[in-house]
Amino acid sequence: MTTPCIITVAITGSVPTKRDNPAVPVTVSEQVESTHEAFETGASLAHLHVRNDDGTTTSNPDRFARLIEGIRAHCPGMIVQLSTGGRSGKGEERGGMIPLKPDMASLSTGSCNFPTRIYENAPQFVDWLAALIKEHGVKPEIEVFDLSMLFKAVEMAGDGRIVGPLHVQFVMGVKNAVPVDRPTFDFYVETLRRLAPDATWTGAGIGRHQLTLHHWALEHGGHLRT
Amino acid sequence: MTTPCIITVAITGSVPTKRDNPAVPVTVSEQVESTHEAFETGASLAHLHVRNDDGTTTSNPDRFARLIEGIRAHCPGMIVQLSTGGRSGKGEERGGMIPLKPDMASLSTGSCNFPTRIYENAPQFVDWLAALIKEHGVKPEIEVFDLSMLFKAVEMAGDGRIVGPLHVQFVMGVKNAVPVDRPTFDFYVETLRRLAPDATWTGAGIGRHQLTLHHWALEHGGHLRT
Ligand SMILES: [Zn+2]
Ligand SMILES: [Zn+2]
Ligand SMILES: [Zn+2]
Ligand SMILES: [Zn+2]
Repeated sequence: MTTPCIITVAITGSVPTKRDNPAVPVTVSEQVESTHEAFETGASLAHLHVRNDDGTTTSNPDRFARLIEGIRAHCPGMIVQLSTGGRSGKGEERGGMIPLKPDMASLSTGSCNFPTRIYENAPQFVDWLAALIKEHGVKPEIEVFDLSMLFKAVEMAGDGRIVGPLHVQFVMGVKNAVPVDRPTFDFYVETLRRLAPDATWTGAGIGRHQLTLHHWALEHGGHLRT
Repeated sequence: MTTPCIITVAITGSVPTKRDNPAVPVTVSEQVESTHEAFETGASLAHLHVRNDDGTTTSNPDRFARLIEGIRAHCPGMIVQLSTGGRSGKGEERGGMIPLKPDMASLSTGSCNFPTRIYENAPQFVDWLAALIKEHGVKPEIEVFDLSMLFKAVEMAGDGRIVGPLHVQFVMGVKNAVPVDRPTFDFYVETLRRLAPDATWTGAGIGRHQLTLHHWALEHGGHLRT
């Protein structure tokens, strides 16, 4: 492809803590610093989660607001994408950051199993969050952890619940969801091309699988996430 | 394939009521009668749900016991498969019929969205139900509503949580889960052959898609469900 490749940095996920890795940036100033480093080495999109002071995951809009402010000041032109994943099952507080009008927000269009629990995105919740994202003019990144989520996103783009063209992230390697599997990756890409030819996409491997997905995505002309 | 084709009859699902279709068999004697008719026309496997007197879905072991007894008396040699789907989220009562030692029981190895709710099969629940099925020597039919469930079943057969060879049912056409889509059906079959070459499988389309799945399954040498 001739369009420039967008390199995404996800500096802080929803799971690792300082106990797992003392280098994980958790406070807003650590996150801004760490995003700035990635920005200087070429990352153009920041995928962001926020934490409470004790390191637990939150969807607190104030923290997201301070983080956006810091990144816009230090990394001019960087695309800011906020995670709505948070801790699933918490309902509408998971959309509390959308009115901040980030450039992008993640949107999972279905439910699946995660390592120790169900990642809950009931049909009504998906519709509610998609409507909020649309209302605030935010670009969604569809997080595909399982095949049905891809079909659901295409359906929602078709009837206008999601404003197209779709941008999809294929997430592989979360235990109990879809694993890192090359034929599945190829099938995901083919299926998206078949059902939504104007869509863009990226691949994300979890943990030690990050680089594998990078290579697969580059071969297919997708975008990267580190 | 040269092995004889097994035709499954699912006389009563978990959703339709007498209001939707007055012909739906709901009482145990209606279910036995209806299974017997299918048996006489060639069905060799009965996939069974039970209902309360008011038509609502239940996992009541007493009703299952009476149903098994009736079918064994009227349909000698018919394979009896009990559904553990029931109403999801009800926890361990969904396995209450396993100690009845039916020939087979359904086992969903993950969670996904259904038309109006999450079909909840948390990781811990899947492990618990699989262990119960194994303990009672029941043959599981893996209900694959989404791709991750196929991978999870292969993992569980690999480490002994499920006694192999796997028998899988690909369910297509439930709203918000994987739809009826020919390339996906082919990918399901290829993936199962790649990861579990000794597995058997069947295809089930929901509602008006029943016949579509029959044709696809026959082309590929799978078994049928009506
Ligand atoms: Zn690119
Ligand atoms: Zn994230
Ligand atoms: Zn057959
Ligand atoms: Zn059933």
